Amino acid sequence: MNTWSSQSRSGQNPLRTEPGVLTMYAMQDKENPCIITILETYSSDEAYKSHIASEHFQKYKQGTLHMVKNLELCDQTPLNSDNIITNTIIQYCKTKST
Amino acid sequence: MNTWSSQSRSGQNPLRTEPGVLTMYAMQDKENPCIITILETYSSDEAYKSHIASEHFQKYKQGTLHMVKNLELCDQTPLNSDNIITNTIIQYCKTKST
Repeated sequence: MNTWSSQSRSGQNPLRTEPGVLTMYAMQDKENPCIITILETYSSDEAYKSHIASEHFQKYKQGTLHMVKNLELCDQTPLNSDNIITNTIIQYCKTKST
Repeated sequence: MNTWSSQSRSGQNPLRTEPGVLTMYAMQDKENPCIITILETYSSDEAYKSHIASEHFQKYKQGTLHMVKNLELCDQTPLNSDNIITNTIIQYCKTKST
């Protein structure tokens, strides 16, 4: 399956493998499902630059290029510096019943 | 001081006092600082309804009413259900030097 959703799942890898990638949270607008928003936070400018140069990102970027009609990068200032946001990826484990 | 920022600080209370409020993260657009985005996530519809009925929310709502020219509630579907986002509020503690 080559959908945006399956591509964005591969985009979760940075949360597991790149310590400087703190948040990567994708959302789809309920009223207009063509609008996808991804909240990304990084520990530093260097972490961001390192991420976009990574193999993971390039794979995601190339895999979604034909799906994206318009892309806006909206750089934000967090308003409360003592309010930290992070991501957790739930790992599903299959267990054998005994 | 009666700014949006000081009001939004009082809006952090739900993260401390309402277990169903998972994320409350305010951002200001760097290009257009008049645009404020708040990412909010709740554990359930009930948690959301309980939050907007709370004293905290009503205080924030009334305190910012005159500052808001346009409000859009953009309901979102998280694209990866195994990707959980949470907030942490850093507590600053003053310590006595001995």
